[in-house]
Amino acid sequence: MPYYHDEVDAVLRALADPTRRAVVERLAKSPAVVSELAAPFSMTLPSLMQHLRVLENAGLVTSQKHGRVRTVSLRPGALDVLHLWLGEQRTPAEHQADRLGIHLTRTTSKET
Amino acid sequence: MPYYHDEVDAVLRALADPTRRAVVERLAKSPAVVSELAAPFSMTLPSLMQHLRVLENAGLVTSQKHGRVRTVSLRPGALDVLHLWLGEQRTPAEHQADRLGIHLTRTTSKET
Repeated sequence: MPYYHDEVDAVLRALADPTRRAVVERLAKSPAVVSELAAPFSMTLPSLMQHLRVLENAGLVTSQKHGRVRTVSLRPGALDVLHLWLGEQRTPAEHQADRLGIHLTRTTSKET
Repeated sequence: MPYYHDEVDAVLRALADPTRRAVVERLAKSPAVVSELAAPFSMTLPSLMQHLRVLENAGLVTSQKHGRVRTVSLRPGALDVLHLWLGEQRTPAEHQADRLGIHLTRTTSKET
């Protein structure tokens, strides 16, 4: 799956930067206009716009312009690709623990 | 939680590199000796060792030396910090979808 690997690569590269991660954390709460996003960081607007472009190219955010105001949102399901990748990295021991957990849940729910 | 944020930062920086990600993917299957890990990559052993150090510093892998052979393993729970961070980035709409999913699961299991 070359397309999937490119997606994982773009998302992880985008999130490896603490400023971009802080933007994602802020947008997970609600969409925001660019000036709001810039406020907590001591950086110029062009620098922030560059970070937003990286996030947009990685498929993590989308933005819409209404008049002179640009609103940025976290794309729904943006981080699904990372969930998927993480799931694939479960070790045999972790899979065994999962199966034990499922077994215990089933046993417990039968008992109640 | 400054310690937690440092951990997330180290893990994401480590995983942003495709070689290091390929090493993690390989180690999720089973521990491996260094020469095995080096085989699929056209890179020198010192370069690989440098990648392994980054992964080790990020808490993702551990290694043990027996005689002249060094075996590298994925640290159990190594990626938990990333699962946690991803969970925190769920948007209000995704939380609502989660609640709907839980409601449907409960309703369905009552009916059967």
